[in-house]
Amino acid sequence: MNPADAVTTAHTIAERLRADAVERDHANQPPHAEIDLLRDSGLLALDPDDHPTTHAVTRIVAAVDASIGHLLGYHYLHLWRATLYDNAELATSLRQEAATGRVFVAAVSNPRDTITATTTSDGLRVSGRGAFATGCAVADRLLVSAIRDDHTARLVVAMHRVSGEVSHPPDWDNLGQRLTASGSVTFDDVRVSQGDVLGTFPADEDESSPRHLRLSLVPLAFQAVLAQVLVGITAGAINEAARYTRDRSRPWPASGVEQAVDDPHVLTGYGELTAALDAARLLADQATRALTEADAQGPALTPAERGRAALTVSAAKVVSSRLATDATSRIFEFTGARATARITGLDRFWRDARTLTLHDPVAYKARELGDHLLTGRYPRMTAYS
Amino acid sequence: MNPADAVTTAHTIAERLRADAVERDHANQPPHAEIDLLRDSGLLALDPDDHPTTHAVTRIVAAVDASIGHLLGYHYLHLWRATLYDNAELATSLRQEAATGRVFVAAVSNPRDTITATTTSDGLRVSGRGAFATGCAVADRLLVSAIRDDHTARLVVAMHRVSGEVSHPPDWDNLGQRLTASGSVTFDDVRVSQGDVLGTFPADEDESSPRHLRLSLVPLAFQAVLAQVLVGITAGAINEAARYTRDRSRPWPASGVEQAVDDPHVLTGYGELTAALDAARLLADQATRALTEADAQGPALTPAERGRAALTVSAAKVVSSRLATDATSRIFEFTGARATARITGLDRFWRDARTLTLHDPVAYKARELGDHLLTGRYPRMTAYS
Amino acid sequence: MNPADAVTTAHTIAERLRADAVERDHANQPPHAEIDLLRDSGLLALDPDDHPTTHAVTRIVAAVDASIGHLLGYHYLHLWRATLYDNAELATSLRQEAATGRVFVAAVSNPRDTITATTTSDGLRVSGRGAFATGCAVADRLLVSAIRDDHTARLVVAMHRVSGEVSHPPDWDNLGQRLTASGSVTFDDVRVSQGDVLGTFPADEDESSPRHLRLSLVPLAFQAVLAQVLVGITAGAINEAARYTRDRSRPWPASGVEQAVDDPHVLTGYGELTAALDAARLLADQATRALTEADAQGPALTPAERGRAALTVSAAKVVSSRLATDATSRIFEFTGARATARITGLDRFWRDARTLTLHDPVAYKARELGDHLLTGRYPRMTAYS
Amino acid sequence: MNPADAVTTAHTIAERLRADAVERDHANQPPHAEIDLLRDSGLLALDPDDHPTTHAVTRIVAAVDASIGHLLGYHYLHLWRATLYDNAELATSLRQEAATGRVFVAAVSNPRDTITATTTSDGLRVSGRGAFATGCAVADRLLVSAIRDDHTARLVVAMHRVSGEVSHPPDWDNLGQRLTASGSVTFDDVRVSQGDVLGTFPADEDESSPRHLRLSLVPLAFQAVLAQVLVGITAGAINEAARYTRDRSRPWPASGVEQAVDDPHVLTGYGELTAALDAARLLADQATRALTEADAQGPALTPAERGRAALTVSAAKVVSSRLATDATSRIFEFTGARATARITGLDRFWRDARTLTLHDPVAYKARELGDHLLTGRYPRMTAYS
Repeated sequence: MNPADAVTTAHTIAERLRADAVERDHANQPPHAEIDLLRDSGLLALDPDDHPTTHAVTRIVAAVDASIGHLLGYHYLHLWRATLYDNAELATSLRQEAATGRVFVAAVSNPRDTITATTTSDGLRVSGRGAFATGCAVADRLLVSAIRDDHTARLVVAMHRVSGEVSHPPDWDNLGQRLTASGSVTFDDVRVSQGDVLGTFPADEDESSPRHLRLSLVPLAFQAVLAQVLVGITAGAINEAARYTRDRSRPWPASGVEQAVDDPHVLTGYGELTAALDAARLLADQATRALTEADAQGPALTPAERGRAALTVSAAKVVSSRLATDATSRIFEFTGARATARITGLDRFWRDARTLTLHDPVAYKARELGDHLLTGRYPRMTAYS
Repeated sequence: MNPADAVTTAHTIAERLRADAVERDHANQPPHAEIDLLRDSGLLALDPDDHPTTHAVTRIVAAVDASIGHLLGYHYLHLWRATLYDNAELATSLRQEAATGRVFVAAVSNPRDTITATTTSDGLRVSGRGAFATGCAVADRLLVSAIRDDHTARLVVAMHRVSGEVSHPPDWDNLGQRLTASGSVTFDDVRVSQGDVLGTFPADEDESSPRHLRLSLVPLAFQAVLAQVLVGITAGAINEAARYTRDRSRPWPASGVEQAVDDPHVLTGYGELTAALDAARLLADQATRALTEADAQGPALTPAERGRAALTVSAAKVVSSRLATDATSRIFEFTGARATARITGLDRFWRDARTLTLHDPVAYKARELGDHLLTGRYPRMTAYS
Repeated sequence: MNPADAVTTAHTIAERLRADAVERDHANQPPHAEIDLLRDSGLLALDPDDHPTTHAVTRIVAAVDASIGHLLGYHYLHLWRATLYDNAELATSLRQEAATGRVFVAAVSNPRDTITATTTSDGLRVSGRGAFATGCAVADRLLVSAIRDDHTARLVVAMHRVSGEVSHPPDWDNLGQRLTASGSVTFDDVRVSQGDVLGTFPADEDESSPRHLRLSLVPLAFQAVLAQVLVGITAGAINEAARYTRDRSRPWPASGVEQAVDDPHVLTGYGELTAALDAARLLADQATRALTEADAQGPALTPAERGRAALTVSAAKVVSSRLATDATSRIFEFTGARATARITGLDRFWRDARTLTLHDPVAYKARELGDHLLTGRYPRMTAYS
Repeated sequence: MNPADAVTTAHTIAERLRADAVERDHANQPPHAEIDLLRDSGLLALDPDDHPTTHAVTRIVAAVDASIGHLLGYHYLHLWRATLYDNAELATSLRQEAATGRVFVAAVSNPRDTITATTTSDGLRVSGRGAFATGCAVADRLLVSAIRDDHTARLVVAMHRVSGEVSHPPDWDNLGQRLTASGSVTFDDVRVSQGDVLGTFPADEDESSPRHLRLSLVPLAFQAVLAQVLVGITAGAINEAARYTRDRSRPWPASGVEQAVDDPHVLTGYGELTAALDAARLLADQATRALTEADAQGPALTPAERGRAALTVSAAKVVSSRLATDATSRIFEFTGARATARITGLDRFWRDARTLTLHDPVAYKARELGDHLLTGRYPRMTAYS
């Protein structure tokens, strides 16, 4: 599917997701049907190295269903990062599976998880628990970060959907991002072969190595996807609220106007949000470009290039977070009180935004930017920056 | 019960309501048990003319359960306003019933409702539908605003809880204020006697009459109660979030501090909200005083005195609305992502604030203040100002 | 000069203007020396149709001296618009003069001015007063908007710098934009020939004509330049403040850090501003592109294309105005109290921003955006939109 | 003078100061005439222990001239604190002088100053330099903080206005608070007797002593005065801007209204500021009351009582600082562009607010409040808290 078709398809899928977004949000079920919809659409098969296209698609879907946009953005991200590790054969195989459009990928990689990989005679056994395993319960393939039992290295292991030994307790009932299936996952002695190991990170690895530098783009890619989802949420919130104001809001008696769409405070309020959204969207797209350019450097990537990309991504994260939190709450001032009926579902945007903006504290992203301005330092490479 | 005891009792009741506030919010049932709790506490029997005490109690309860605080504040308000109308005997009777502490009062008075009172040989028949009949489904007595069928007057009629002819469809499933039982009410030919008519408002009544002026305090009292509830919501949100940060939040790795309560951004964030809350609380209490003073003028109340009270109340409404909306969303930045689990229930404050702040658009309250500053004009007397 | 050289030159000129920006701001003299600097630099000779380059240069200069950036941006704008009118010969001549790099152009075009052009046997006599004649006192050529004495048409007339009959009272002593020479101008029977008339606008001209549509880009170009200057001001404010924090600020005792650049609130504060600046810059550049594209349509420009450009420009104006006002005031929180010494000059950014953001009220730009979102309408064509 | 007369007199003086406030601000001269005006008014003779009255007077004066309000507030503060030290006789003498209404008191007490008191046979010699010696250049009596040359103690010494040995370089040319004469002061071997020593602070003094606890109210009193001045500045800004809007602003063409005072954005904007000002004013007055109550405890003051007063004062400082900074900049949005003419002087409010809000960083005041909420700790006793 070429980029233009991908965007068109994304809009079609978005329109379908929009139709019952409120009901699905309230039902809080694992998104099996939604992932099937993505499978049937062909969108899972997009080229994961084409960040501009995958991010555009992610944002379009996120505008109507932030959970599904989030899952889709991560799917692309996992497939992209697969090729950055050591096992080219496995990465190629994963890509080929994904190219069929039928395979959805998720991962367990919270740095605070304790999942252990024990070496056995014929491979590895993986055990432990992962918190916030976004999408795993509905995924066909999992990328699992584990610690080797002798603590000499971290591994990323690819798994097929396994019944029995991998369990997903129904423990995800969250304010927002309710359809991301971000509950916990438990691995109970899951067997994997050495060929399933995608990457190995020795505990004493040199942080300045080209490999490490390149892999340090992965946290930036996560952040860039989050920024796009937040921009999508904001766009969705404004659009749905505008639709409500247009179709259902009544003018306030004291306003003296005949329709809600003529109220000066409503007009100005929407205008402020729209302008801010335009700016946030451009900045998120700049983050995507920065990631793309850094990625294109391959092993030649320098710390300064990586650092500049990190700053651009952080800026996008800061701006999109602030705006999403603010805009998704303010829209109600332009719809009126009746829009707080739960069936209207306008609150889902705030709930999604508020959840996603807390993924990692935005104040620390702002600090990175301030630090660079004042001292010229680039952000440290961590799991979040 | 004297004022000090009332405050102590309110704190006790608040502690009990707090224990299962999240579960009750999720369950979305009419608040029968909660009203029983108020009945048993004696709080329903407070002197409704003592606004400082009733507002203090309202705020204390609202800080843990904004719905119940709202219902309680309106109960006092309805009993207070009963004596402003024409039927002193009925007002006295209502007061006496309330003084037992067992009678909870609610009202139907949305200016957009169409409820008709038809004169019959032996009294009146009331029919029609009221939207947003806060508390009616759980009330012992109702004050119902109706239009006389010949359109010559509006009436306020007092009713007992009536089965059959008064129905409350289970149509209240809202973002916030979920336990206020603010669904619709339908009156199907309800018989009332002439003695149940609390007040009559001829369509051609002179707006400058002392009676009209005095009754124009009623909308101000509604607004003052809303301001107190909003201050309560803000206080509750800050307290619950602080409890979470203290007991459960983990420090962010990049912060370099050992506990979340040492994070500079967390400290500053809470400090800003706390300071703003102090200011909003003082302003809400000033609104209560302004109402009390205007009320104390009785029939001697002048338009300028009424106007000044209206401005004070509007200022409290503006400040408490802005703060409640902002603070209830920002608290999550100080608790971290795990606090978005639905079971935590921290989002109920935003949902309550967002719902209540839309009762009437705050921009129009700000306009009144701006207009007075620039032109010296006092707010027009309307159902909301 | 090619675009890359223009940008390099702009940076060089900016560095020179920066050296004594504070002193020149305080002195409040007409910017003769500054315009000479521009003349010598060759920057006045850039291709006025190349908006991306002229806007980039404008912003670079505005970051150190918002007045001179403003004058330069308008100079390009006037030369660009000259070719949109009827007198191709005169436009060509103006362009040729400007291409020498020695000629600086300004204009008098406030829609509230009353300047009259009286037809005589040998041409026209222009008389009247223009308020806020930005740059005229130091310009080599003036474009003057006048009303024909029979009120049948408005004219745009080109004038050389004329002594005696054109006077510039020293009445420009403003908070900000002090070096723009935006005082009044008086024309006392200035003779111009028919060949000096650049354009004629019959009072009954059809607003939907291609000519009118194309000329309606002029207000958008003004707004786009203002957005770029505001972005420049913000960038300059952040840069100068950061320099101060880095070189001169002392850590606050209670902070426990050794240098001001390690204070968490300072870092986060700068980071927030930097991120917002990135977003505003991208949006201003999008406005420039929108203008460029609409301009490139020539007479084929459609109302919808014009409308979309107007919306993009309005969004940039809204975002850059809000940010400039806020950022130029907040920077002081990161420098400390000693930076309020007048000699430091850090306040000039707020003064410039506050002045320029009031050029036309930004609330009405936001309204245009809200109106389009809700109703699909494009902004009306006025002198400001 | 009783409190009511003091308030009336303050309004009269304020009206006189208002008449030429802009000119005097621009002239940047030491405020000799202004202090004479205060002398003649009798306001210098108010009871310095009556904080509610002195703070009310301070705020009234500050609303028209923040510098003079600031000086007046400090004058009362210095006379109040004089009695907290050891030398009752000297304190009484100072109070008696002040009661004549002819004596204006200022102080040098920046904790970063290095002023030395050398013991001689007949008393002390004071030498050194003080930065930001607010009001000293125009004061009749100075309270000077100095270090004993053997470093065993800090002293507070009272001085008469001394020519020659005390010099005030004309080095105060600041953005705001221009008439506070806050330049440096130099002491060149000034002789004082032992009887001029108001207080002695041994370097090893126990911080938990009643004397130390009581003296720790002094920084709170400074902060409370600053909060009142900031509230005054905000009130002044809103009043002057409203006067401008009313008398001089023209309606914006696109607004469709006939007068600027009918513009919805203007009305709402002023209304928001007015409401916020009401809240800030109440909070500042609560801080004054908290100080008054803690002061009334005398030597019985407990750390917890002191701590609660400190928190109340900090809250007032946070709220008044944020509002003053914001409101003094936003007012221009309601007056229009012509109000940026320097002669209008509306910018002086922002300049004063921006200067005064940086006295000590407000983020650290917010931190104290957050710390108390989360941990129950009271603010540490420092020179600023």
